[in-house]
Amino acid sequence: MAWFRTLTRFSATAKSWPVRTIPTSPSLLLTSLRYFSTGAAVDNRPPPARCGDLEPTRGGEKPRVVVLGSGWAGCRLMKGIDTNIYDVVCVSPRNHMVFTPLLASTCVGTLEFRSVAEPVGRIQPAISTEPGSYFFLSNCKGIDAENRRVHCETVTEGPNTPDPWKFNVSYDKLVIALGAEALTFGIRGVNEHAIFLREVHHAQEIRRRLLLNLMLSDVPGTTEQEKSRLLHCVVVGGGPTGVEFSGELSDFITKDVRQRHAHVKDYIRVTLIEANEILSSFDDRLRQYATKQLTKSGVRLVRGIVKDVESHKIVLDNGTEVPYGLLVWSTGVGPSSLVKSLDLPKSPGGRIGIDEWLRVANVPDVFAIGDCSGFVESTGKPVLPALAQVAERQGKYLAGLLNRIGKAGGGRANSGAELDLGDPFVYKHMGSMATIGRYKALVDLRKSKEGKGISLAGFLSWFIWRSAYLTRVVSWRNRFYVAVNWLTTMVFGRDISRI
Amino acid sequence: MAWFRTLTRFSATAKSWPVRTIPTSPSLLLTSLRYFSTGAAVDNRPPPARCGDLEPTRGGEKPRVVVLGSGWAGCRLMKGIDTNIYDVVCVSPRNHMVFTPLLASTCVGTLEFRSVAEPVGRIQPAISTEPGSYFFLSNCKGIDAENRRVHCETVTEGPNTPDPWKFNVSYDKLVIALGAEALTFGIRGVNEHAIFLREVHHAQEIRRRLLLNLMLSDVPGTTEQEKSRLLHCVVVGGGPTGVEFSGELSDFITKDVRQRHAHVKDYIRVTLIEANEILSSFDDRLRQYATKQLTKSGVRLVRGIVKDVESHKIVLDNGTEVPYGLLVWSTGVGPSSLVKSLDLPKSPGGRIGIDEWLRVANVPDVFAIGDCSGFVESTGKPVLPALAQVAERQGKYLAGLLNRIGKAGGGRANSGAELDLGDPFVYKHMGSMATIGRYKALVDLRKSKEGKGISLAGFLSWFIWRSAYLTRVVSWRNRFYVAVNWLTTMVFGRDISRI
Repeated sequence: MAWFRTLTRFSATAKSWPVRTIPTSPSLLLTSLRYFSTGAAVDNRPPPARCGDLEPTRGGEKPRVVVLGSGWAGCRLMKGIDTNIYDVVCVSPRNHMVFTPLLASTCVGTLEFRSVAEPVGRIQPAISTEPGSYFFLSNCKGIDAENRRVHCETVTEGPNTPDPWKFNVSYDKLVIALGAEALTFGIRGVNEHAIFLREVHHAQEIRRRLLLNLMLSDVPGTTEQEKSRLLHCVVVGGGPTGVEFSGELSDFITKDVRQRHAHVKDYIRVTLIEANEILSSFDDRLRQYATKQLTKSGVRLVRGIVKDVESHKIVLDNGTEVPYGLLVWSTGVGPSSLVKSLDLPKSPGGRIGIDEWLRVANVPDVFAIGDCSGFVESTGKPVLPALAQVAERQGKYLAGLLNRIGKAGGGRANSGAELDLGDPFVYKHMGSMATIGRYKALVDLRKSKEGKGISLAGFLSWFIWRSAYLTRVVSWRNRFYVAVNWLTTMVFGRDISRI
Repeated sequence: MAWFRTLTRFSATAKSWPVRTIPTSPSLLLTSLRYFSTGAAVDNRPPPARCGDLEPTRGGEKPRVVVLGSGWAGCRLMKGIDTNIYDVVCVSPRNHMVFTPLLASTCVGTLEFRSVAEPVGRIQPAISTEPGSYFFLSNCKGIDAENRRVHCETVTEGPNTPDPWKFNVSYDKLVIALGAEALTFGIRGVNEHAIFLREVHHAQEIRRRLLLNLMLSDVPGTTEQEKSRLLHCVVVGGGPTGVEFSGELSDFITKDVRQRHAHVKDYIRVTLIEANEILSSFDDRLRQYATKQLTKSGVRLVRGIVKDVESHKIVLDNGTEVPYGLLVWSTGVGPSSLVKSLDLPKSPGGRIGIDEWLRVANVPDVFAIGDCSGFVESTGKPVLPALAQVAERQGKYLAGLLNRIGKAGGGRANSGAELDLGDPFVYKHMGSMATIGRYKALVDLRKSKEGKGISLAGFLSWFIWRSAYLTRVVSWRNRFYVAVNWLTTMVFGRDISRI
C-alpha cells in the first residue's frame, strides 16, 4: 500500500501547506502582498531618477566627518574617531581595508585572500549601525570645497546590477585618504598586460593566472618554448613588494610546484627586473643578503629598464626581449589621476599639499593623509614616503586632532579654525621590514636611509616580521586566521585549488 | 658625511651586483641566456600550430584510465584507482572537486570558498607526479569510441591567456563522469539573470551580489521601492539545495545583517518559490518541521510556477510579478547538452545508458557514473537520483571493478571483456540530510521515499549533519578548515568583506 500512503501524504501536504503558513506568519503574508503588488510598478516604469544627496548636518545632529578611501590612513582614522562627537561617512569603492604587507603571500596560497581583508564595518562599527554614519560603496568624482560637499558615483558590476548613479555628500570635516596609483612611467602596454599587486583582486588574478599557466603547460600541444614562456614569472620593480612576491613565488615553486606539478617543474622560473638596486631603502648589508638569498632560491635578478610591454613579452631598453607568462608590476606609486585633477594646493611631486597639522593648505575643514598627501614646500618638511607606516601614523594623529577639535566645539563646518591644534604631526620612522621567502626576512631598524641603526637578517627577523604583522592585523578574527593559515601551510603545504 | 657614505654605498652595490650574482648562479645565467635569446624567436613567429595528442599506450606502459570530470563520481573513482596498475588521466575544466553539500554555506561567509574545494591533485597525487598520469584543464568536446579517444579543448581566460586549442586523448578504459546541468525548463531569462548554485564561482557571485545590493541600498538616491527590490532574495526550487541556501540566508540576515547593515535590515527578505512541495523526497513530518522552521526564521514560502524571468523581476504563471535583487535557481539537474550530443546508448530520461556493472551498454571499455549516467531499460532497474551519495558510491564501486579487471590483466583497450566482473553495482540509500539554518537540520534515514525509518529534526540532527559532512570532506586540511570556519563564525560572526 506504499502508493496509497504516498498519495495521502502528497494530498495532505498539498492541502495543509497554506493552512500551515498563514497562521504562523501573517506579517510575512502582508509583506509579500506589498511586494508582489508593488512589483509590477517597479519594472513597468523606467528606473526612477536618482535625486538623493546627503544634505549638510543640522543643529540637532552630530557634525559629520567624511572620509574618502578605506586604506591604511582612512581606516586607522575611522578606528580612532570618537563617534560620540562625530558621525562618520566613508566613501570607498571597496568595503574592506587590504592588509597590504601580507598581500603577496595570498597569491601563492600561503594565506587566504580573506585573511588580509578587513571589513570597514568591523574597523568602525558605527558606519553600519549609527543612524548618521554610513559606508557608501562609491567612487569620489570630485570635491566642491566651496559648498563643502563631495561628488560621488556608485560602483556597479555589469548585468543585473543597478547602473551607477551620482550623488553628493556634504561634510563638516573632510578627510582625503584616496591613496596613490601604481606608476607605469607611461610605458606602453603595462596597464593592458601587467598585473599590479595592490588590491585583493590583483592577488586573485595573479593566482588564477599562475595556476592556469601551470596546468596549460601540462596539456598536449604545448611546445617546449611555450612552456618556458608560460611558466616564466617576471616581476618588475625591486622594492619590498616586488622582492616579497618574488620570495613567496620561489618558495611556492621549491616547496609546492615541485611536488604538485612535477611534470613541468623544470620550466618555471622567476625573474626580478630592477632598474637600479633592489630594496634601495634598506641597509647595504641587508641588500647584499637579500640578493644572495633570492639568487640562491632561484630568483634571477636582472638589471634593466623596461621599454615596452607586449602581451607575451617585454622589451628592455638594451633591446633584450623577455617572454613571460605572468607579469607583475610593482615599481612604486604616484598621485592618482583623481588627485591630480583636484583643484587643491599640491606638494612637490603633485600630491595634495598639507601643513604640519595635515590640513590641506588654505582649504578650511579639509584634511589629507596617506599616500595622496605631502607637505607643502612652505612647511620646509620633505614629502614622506608612501608607506603603510606613514599612513597609519597620520590616520592615528588626525583622529586625535579631530577628536580634540570636536570636544572643543569646533566640529561643525566653518568653525574651530581658531582653536589651538596642539603639536603638529611628526613622523618617526620605525624601520623597514621585508620577507624574502624561506623563513627569512630583513629588518632595518635605522631611523633613516643614511642613519645608523640595527639591521637583522635571517630566521630571527623572519620571526619578528611574522609576529610584528600578526599583531598589526586589525581584528582578532584575522589575526587568528592568519595564524591558522600559516600553520596549515606549514603542515599541509599551500592550497592549489583554482577557484 | 652621510652623503659620502651613501654615494660609496650606491656605487659599491652598482659595481658589486654582477660580481655577486655571476659566481653564485652560473646555471641561472645560462638559463637566462637561453630564455632571452629564444625570447625573440617565440614572438616574431605566429604561435606554433597545436599538434599534440596523447597517443595510445604502448607495450611497456601501464594501461590508461581516462576520467572525464572532477565531481563526486570522478574524484571518488580516481581516489580508489590503483596507480600501480593504471595511469590516470583526468580531463576537467576545473582542477578541484566542489564539496557541494557545503557550498550554500559559503555564499554568506559561514565557510570560506576554499574550504569546500578539494584539488584533484590532492585526491589523486599520481596525476601530478606519475610520468604517465595527467590532469588536463580542458573540456571534453566529444568521444570517438571507434578509435578509443576523446576530443578535448583547453579552457581559456580572455586576454593574456593562450587561445584554446584542441587535442585528443586515447584511452584504454574511459570513465564518463561529466555530471549534469541545471534544469531551466526552457524558461526565458533563467540563464541570463538567475545564478545557479553548483560551482564555487556561483557561490562567489551570489556573495558579491548580495553584499553589493546590501551596500547599494544604503546609498543616497535609492528609493524605498528599490531597496525592497535590491534586498529581495528569491530562491526558486525547494529541494535540499534551495532549502539549505534559504536557511543559511535567513541565518545571515538574523545574525549578521541586523548588526552590520542596520540601516537596511528591515528591507531584506527571502522568498522560496516551489512548484510542488519543499523537500519532496523527505519524510512528511520532517517536511512540516522544515516548513515551520523556515517560516519562523522569516523565509516566505510561496507555491508557484515561474513563467518568465526578467532582469529585475520574475513572473509566475498566475501573473504575479516578483521583483528581486538576487535570484538563485536550484530546480534540479538534467543531462547536459554534451551528454545529449554523445552518440551513446541512453537511459530513460536521456542519461548515458549503463548496465549493472556501470558499463556503457554495448560500448567496450567505456563506463559512465554519477549524474550523467542511468541504467538502461533492459536492466529493469530505475534510474538513480542525481545525488552526491549515488555518485560517490558508483565511483568507489567502479574503482574496485577496474582494479580487479586490471589485476586480471584486462586493463588494456579491447581486453578483459570475458573476465568475470563479480557482483553488479547495487545502490543502498543511506538516508538524506538537509540543514535549515539556526543550528537545525533534517535527517531522513529511511531507505526509500515510501519506506519506513528514523527521521530526526532539530539540533541533534544538525550536529549529526555537521559531523557527517565534516568527516566526509576529503582532505584533513579541509576538515580542519571547515571546523575552523565554523568556530570563527560562531565566535566572530560571518565575514562580510566583499573581495
